[in-house]
Amino acid sequence: MKKLFAEFFGTFWLVFGGCGSAIFASQIAPADSGQVGILLVGVALAFGLTVLTMAYAVGHISGGHFNPAVTLGLLSGGRHSAKEAVPYIVSQCIGAIAAAAAIYFINGGTGGDAPGAFATNFYDHAVYFGKSYSMGAAFLTEFLLTMFFLIIIMGTTDKFANGKFAGIAIGLALTLIHLISIPITNTSVNPARSLSQAVFVGGDALAQLWLFWVAPILGAIVGGLIYKNLLESPEKEELDS
Amino acid sequence: MKKLFAEFFGTFWLVFGGCGSAIFASQIAPADSGQVGILLVGVALAFGLTVLTMAYAVGHISGGHFNPAVTLGLLSGGRHSAKEAVPYIVSQCIGAIAAAAAIYFINGGTGGDAPGAFATNFYDHAVYFGKSYSMGAAFLTEFLLTMFFLIIIMGTTDKFANGKFAGIAIGLALTLIHLISIPITNTSVNPARSLSQAVFVGGDALAQLWLFWVAPILGAIVGGLIYKNLLESPEKEELDS
Amino acid sequence: MKKLFAEFFGTFWLVFGGCGSAIFASQIAPADSGQVGILLVGVALAFGLTVLTMAYAVGHISGGHFNPAVTLGLLSGGRHSAKEAVPYIVSQCIGAIAAAAAIYFINGGTGGDAPGAFATNFYDHAVYFGKSYSMGAAFLTEFLLTMFFLIIIMGTTDKFANGKFAGIAIGLALTLIHLISIPITNTSVNPARSLSQAVFVGGDALAQLWLFWVAPILGAIVGGLIYKNLLESPEKEELDS
Amino acid sequence: MKKLFAEFFGTFWLVFGGCGSAIFASQIAPADSGQVGILLVGVALAFGLTVLTMAYAVGHISGGHFNPAVTLGLLSGGRHSAKEAVPYIVSQCIGAIAAAAAIYFINGGTGGDAPGAFATNFYDHAVYFGKSYSMGAAFLTEFLLTMFFLIIIMGTTDKFANGKFAGIAIGLALTLIHLISIPITNTSVNPARSLSQAVFVGGDALAQLWLFWVAPILGAIVGGLIYKNLLESPEKEELDS
Repeated sequence: MKKLFAEFFGTFWLVFGGCGSAIFASQIAPADSGQVGILLVGVALAFGLTVLTMAYAVGHISGGHFNPAVTLGLLSGGRHSAKEAVPYIVSQCIGAIAAAAAIYFINGGTGGDAPGAFATNFYDHAVYFGKSYSMGAAFLTEFLLTMFFLIIIMGTTDKFANGKFAGIAIGLALTLIHLISIPITNTSVNPARSLSQAVFVGGDALAQLWLFWVAPILGAIVGGLIYKNLLESPEKEELDS
Repeated sequence: MKKLFAEFFGTFWLVFGGCGSAIFASQIAPADSGQVGILLVGVALAFGLTVLTMAYAVGHISGGHFNPAVTLGLLSGGRHSAKEAVPYIVSQCIGAIAAAAAIYFINGGTGGDAPGAFATNFYDHAVYFGKSYSMGAAFLTEFLLTMFFLIIIMGTTDKFANGKFAGIAIGLALTLIHLISIPITNTSVNPARSLSQAVFVGGDALAQLWLFWVAPILGAIVGGLIYKNLLESPEKEELDS
Repeated sequence: MKKLFAEFFGTFWLVFGGCGSAIFASQIAPADSGQVGILLVGVALAFGLTVLTMAYAVGHISGGHFNPAVTLGLLSGGRHSAKEAVPYIVSQCIGAIAAAAAIYFINGGTGGDAPGAFATNFYDHAVYFGKSYSMGAAFLTEFLLTMFFLIIIMGTTDKFANGKFAGIAIGLALTLIHLISIPITNTSVNPARSLSQAVFVGGDALAQLWLFWVAPILGAIVGGLIYKNLLESPEKEELDS
Repeated sequence: MKKLFAEFFGTFWLVFGGCGSAIFASQIAPADSGQVGILLVGVALAFGLTVLTMAYAVGHISGGHFNPAVTLGLLSGGRHSAKEAVPYIVSQCIGAIAAAAAIYFINGGTGGDAPGAFATNFYDHAVYFGKSYSMGAAFLTEFLLTMFFLIIIMGTTDKFANGKFAGIAIGLALTLIHLISIPITNTSVNPARSLSQAVFVGGDALAQLWLFWVAPILGAIVGGLIYKNLLESPEKEELDS
């Protein structure tokens, strides 16, 4: 049960910190203050730091997934038990939606921005970033980034690696992933994060939600298999047995 | 006594570095130089680095709170003794006000900016960031952020965690907290930091100061209780006895 | 063979993350959204984080070079075997080109930017950054930066150093190198990274490619020799024998 | 002798990376490219990363001072021998000036910016940052920042501290110091860094150089004494004897 609380609070923090910083702070009308907000680099840093901070805070309790794709990728890579997968994913989705509700209250209580300003993921969509990326480009991007995310997670927590640094490497990997892909899909690599924003916005966000479940989960499964079969040392299994 | 000196210098550094960077460097008139200052992301980084650096420098002396809400949250979480709480908080407030005085001298010695430009916290206030957040939104934001700050502090210093990385995780958690909430309240989560700015500015800053004591302290107490009761491993207590 | 897979995936990630962030996210037409992209500081951070993340993920497998100059510099510094150098470099170049192909698909699938917008390296070239640097300035810059990169790699992995922190120091050294030199050469210090972009762009990028092999490799060899002869402790060799 | 080489290369890197990033990359004419450079936050990051990277690379050889004020502050704090102080400071100054010469060649070889664009320190000087700070404000700023820099250096390398993280904390402390004070004095806290720029610029930079030797050195000596007398644990001395 402590594991599920840890996943709940960790995923709440990921959405509240990552999506919250995007919604509240990424861009501020410069006409009013000359300030221009934390910009995309601030949002990328915020997403990564949610994982870095919670990995060291509750990673020793639940492993610190905070992401259904990570849970399934670790399952495919032989690092997580199948029976715990569904409870983990349910806790993650509830935590993500609860965080989105808190953002909605803080943002909506003052009127102003429509819920459509939420940090939804998208493809074929040029409103925010001046260039539109196709469904195929979005799918490949989400697939590849989640695949590498899992290779990094599997590798940094390998018995032969400096495992204590995993929280830094995994958190900053998520920052890096956002630095690459915010303009392409607004960056998911996390189905719970995408779900939490889509349920408060509806419309296109819900219609396109399928891609942000399918591509990250497929990428994560392939990433887990790549690490297990091409990179993991065979001596490891021998040492274990 | 060394503990109180450590809290004095640590809180001085938090206010001098965090509020100082906001006041001196966050925004520079671009007409003069084309430079635009360190922006909000620089201020967020500065606040976090004050805690990261001092946590490794004097954390082994006093625990490295630098924040009355942290002291009280650790008390509620069973990690700090009650009799040391008041001296800690007094040292923190004196250190914060001394740092604000140094900022006042450096800034005011050249005329220019009025003291109202200090890094005060606020709600229902649209001057700096183009959108106004209500008292309720500000309260919830400060409450939640301090609650998670304490969960992170309790978790990263848990006996089962990689405690040597706590200074990195806690410092960068404060950076993350600023990335989310500078536009909402100018970010407190620290009553001593809010006090230090308000006493040099007066007016609205003093009138609204109550919220930046009540919300962070309540959040910290709840955060300490959440970690202790929902996340902390029961085996810990057994091992201790 | 696992070593070569590790170098393949690591160099893919370096190019996909570093060049990809530069191409997709460094600059966004502000007319559309007010967003201005991750800017040069975001690109510098991205390059460094590709190495930081993969160093902790697969460094225990291959050593984590991801760069032909690093492989040859470690050879000159007495840290790498000669017979592995060529397979390492071939894996690195294949990984880099595969990443560039993925970027090309994601970017080109939507039309828009010409391949010339790829993250090529250059000298005597003022299009992007407002000031042109001569071939001599570009050569000295690439030479010095790769020389120091190798001193840092050799030093942080020295037996007497805190080797577990090497991934952080080496990754952030690459961030620092980009902070200095993006406006000068668009920063190579890595022949595989330069090759991968040049083969998709041709023209000047191919004609100038020689400098981004010769200068980094010479710098790396000199850096390896400097550390070995001027800085490495003689007791080390004695302890080994 | 290895120690003096380590201080030479470390201080070269500090000036080449810190001042170099300020000169080459901090600001780019946006009319040409829309790019605006790495901005002040990038320069602050660069200075810190020079120290972070070299602390882990050669800190085990020389202690990693790269700064005459640090050498003298550690002397006053009882951590460094008096007879090594002068050779250390000479090596640091030679390394800093050699780096400035390399910057001069790279920058000057293409004409363009006058040497006056070098990264000199100043007071009573409003050209770059839109607001002028008095000599008194500049002195207090440099004094306080170097004092805290020494408290952090002394504390993070204390026997009771997590000494392996000192390189991260000290490097990022220098980033923080720049985030606070670039607009005030262009940030010195390092007499060798100030000297290296002044000798290539002359005029006001040389006339004001005294402050950037006196204030940092006084601050460092006071910082060393504060840590030794107010914060250092007395049990330490007992344990040593």
